[in-house]
Amino acid sequence: MLSLEEANELIREKFKDYPVKTEEVDVWEGINRILAEDIVASVDVPGFSRSMCDGYAVLASDTQTASEETPVLLEYRGEILPGENAGVEAKEGQCIYVSTGSMMPSGADAVIMVEQTRLQDQEFVLIYKPVFNGERIIKRGDDIKNGQVLIKQGERINPKHVGALVAAGVHRVKVFARPRFAIISTGDELVDIGENPAEGQIRDTNSYALQAFIRKFGGEVVHRVLVRDNRELYQRELENAVKCADMVLVSGGCSVGIRDYTAEAINALPGEGVFIQGVSIRPGRPLIVGECMGRPVFGLPGHPIAPVILFKIVVEKLWNHIVGCIDQADVVKAVVDFDMRPAVFTHLLVQLERGEGLVRVKAAGPGNPAQTSAVSRADGYIWIKNPETGLCRGDISEVYIF
Amino acid sequence: MLSLEEANELIREKFKDYPVKTEEVDVWEGINRILAEDIVASVDVPGFSRSMCDGYAVLASDTQTASEETPVLLEYRGEILPGENAGVEAKEGQCIYVSTGSMMPSGADAVIMVEQTRLQDQEFVLIYKPVFNGERIIKRGDDIKNGQVLIKQGERINPKHVGALVAAGVHRVKVFARPRFAIISTGDELVDIGENPAEGQIRDTNSYALQAFIRKFGGEVVHRVLVRDNRELYQRELENAVKCADMVLVSGGCSVGIRDYTAEAINALPGEGVFIQGVSIRPGRPLIVGECMGRPVFGLPGHPIAPVILFKIVVEKLWNHIVGCIDQADVVKAVVDFDMRPAVFTHLLVQLERGEGLVRVKAAGPGNPAQTSAVSRADGYIWIKNPETGLCRGDISEVYIF
Repeated sequence: MLSLEEANELIREKFKDYPVKTEEVDVWEGINRILAEDIVASVDVPGFSRSMCDGYAVLASDTQTASEETPVLLEYRGEILPGENAGVEAKEGQCIYVSTGSMMPSGADAVIMVEQTRLQDQEFVLIYKPVFNGERIIKRGDDIKNGQVLIKQGERINPKHVGALVAAGVHRVKVFARPRFAIISTGDELVDIGENPAEGQIRDTNSYALQAFIRKFGGEVVHRVLVRDNRELYQRELENAVKCADMVLVSGGCSVGIRDYTAEAINALPGEGVFIQGVSIRPGRPLIVGECMGRPVFGLPGHPIAPVILFKIVVEKLWNHIVGCIDQADVVKAVVDFDMRPAVFTHLLVQLERGEGLVRVKAAGPGNPAQTSAVSRADGYIWIKNPETGLCRGDISEVYIF
Repeated sequence: MLSLEEANELIREKFKDYPVKTEEVDVWEGINRILAEDIVASVDVPGFSRSMCDGYAVLASDTQTASEETPVLLEYRGEILPGENAGVEAKEGQCIYVSTGSMMPSGADAVIMVEQTRLQDQEFVLIYKPVFNGERIIKRGDDIKNGQVLIKQGERINPKHVGALVAAGVHRVKVFARPRFAIISTGDELVDIGENPAEGQIRDTNSYALQAFIRKFGGEVVHRVLVRDNRELYQRELENAVKCADMVLVSGGCSVGIRDYTAEAINALPGEGVFIQGVSIRPGRPLIVGECMGRPVFGLPGHPIAPVILFKIVVEKLWNHIVGCIDQADVVKAVVDFDMRPAVFTHLLVQLERGEGLVRVKAAGPGNPAQTSAVSRADGYIWIKNPETGLCRGDISEVYIF
């Protein structure tokens, strides 16, 4: 049976030429989307040298002998207001009043704070301190240079980027289209969210849990259907799903009868069909992966923990690979607070404890695989990659946060 | 001058009775919103005992002597399909076929996997292994119990909660209304995002950066205006802002001239007026906080790093306190990779390095306070609470992630 790494490698290989679309959107719309090209500044920011305080624009060389006892006397040549085109030039022996944000007059190369000066008769300014070349100035391009890469292709746009994008006059960004998902829920015992389950029935929780994680990931669910245990119906619904989505998730399709249907239905459509049946991990061992009409189809087990974990460790990973996105925002490192040597490669639901020092991580309870509430109670999960060594109290582990 | 803690304490005290609204929304709409009441399950999940595998529902006591050599013989009493109301009862000496998810028949208290049995002539089943009471069953309420608190008031609803909410039949949730923000940008040198700045002008970046962080926080910007350096206009715009928003952010209102206007304008409106002018932190020292007509008004410095940091450490904190939300999702702990003893209490922009072992954190460059791009390049910030001891290479520090 394949390891998780082998399975992911195989899946990547199959879909390495997946034709992902791009679109151009407003910066606002682009937040949390994955960039399809580098964003390159086409202007200098600021576009001119600006004063960073209220004071006098001077030639630094004029001020070198200035002190409290022997101030330098400079000719006062007026004021430049913020927002105003400087227009004037400061020559040797002259100074011009500027406010925070004012454009610097040509010639001047520093600003002395108003507190360190005194204006005399609107004609002369006494300078009590020397300033260095460049002091209290932000020069043209000091913030952002024309041609500079502001955000790289493959990064997600984050609120922190917005200031720089606006400053550089970037309004539109080219991002990868949101991945479109179809979800097929199978199981005769399932009723939809709005219905009241009769005795023997339960609500279909997996497709909604998946939908929530899909949205957080930046994808959209374009098709969702609950299919009864009927071979023809199932075949038809899978075809519908494959035709409208980038990826198809079949939830509950890995129990004995349904598992056969899923594999059969995938194999009946044009394409390579099923190429993974089972991965040596827990939870998620019965994972089925196939290709129909160029689209990946994932058959996920019905118990509620596995589909969520598989979505994170297989489905998200595939899409991130296709678009070249490396998402590390939701990973923390924490000190393991338990010993565990599982029989197989295991993803374990965990809770974090934040106090003094490092974050500590503990197992999130016994975790009956049939519990929807187990995911709800966990802060995230860890990946015990090596069952032989397992995890020991005091180890540092990556924790993937929900 | 107040410390950050003193300032936050004072602000909390002033607005401790802030009349925050609540609303009832769909679970979907509720994701990332803050709960205004505990969500309590009103049903058991599952609502009946279910089989967790394909096999035979039995009385565990009947199987205790079973082995490969001496199987136990049980009477076969038919099958319960998934989704079907069991209807029948299993009595001593009997067994009933169940699938994964099937309702358990009354009387039976365990399931034996079909692989450990053999059906004879559709009349008897040979059982080759003993099972314990409760084996391979998820009992009524094992997942979620009627009356159980699923998510506590003050928590943010996360995708991870959706499965449990749907399972428990929760469709609507009571959440706190999104905080409504008004942003006033001041500065004669500013032009709006769509305009091309002339010589001497720059684009208003702060209000857009703030808006991005407001949205991420779950708030909305209901009013945004760019005000020229005109006292009457400014006064009128502040009044408009206070009337339509929960919180007012004045960006750039702390430079010399404008700072006076801001304080004056706040004081001219009904209410307590300005109660904080300056906090002993860097960046963000010129912070002004006041109360007009029951609303908090924050005067934020114009340089682009300070407003973002102040939004996180003062404005978000106030709202989280008002609604009782503790948000820790965006904090990681990391090993400091530099020595620093700043002169004052400092928030420092940082970058993370994730490799083997713990996450390491380094300062995100010189950080000219006038750079919009500095925030863009940082992964987050750390808080050097104690300038005397500062931070030393190897210390563990909390990192607040953007």
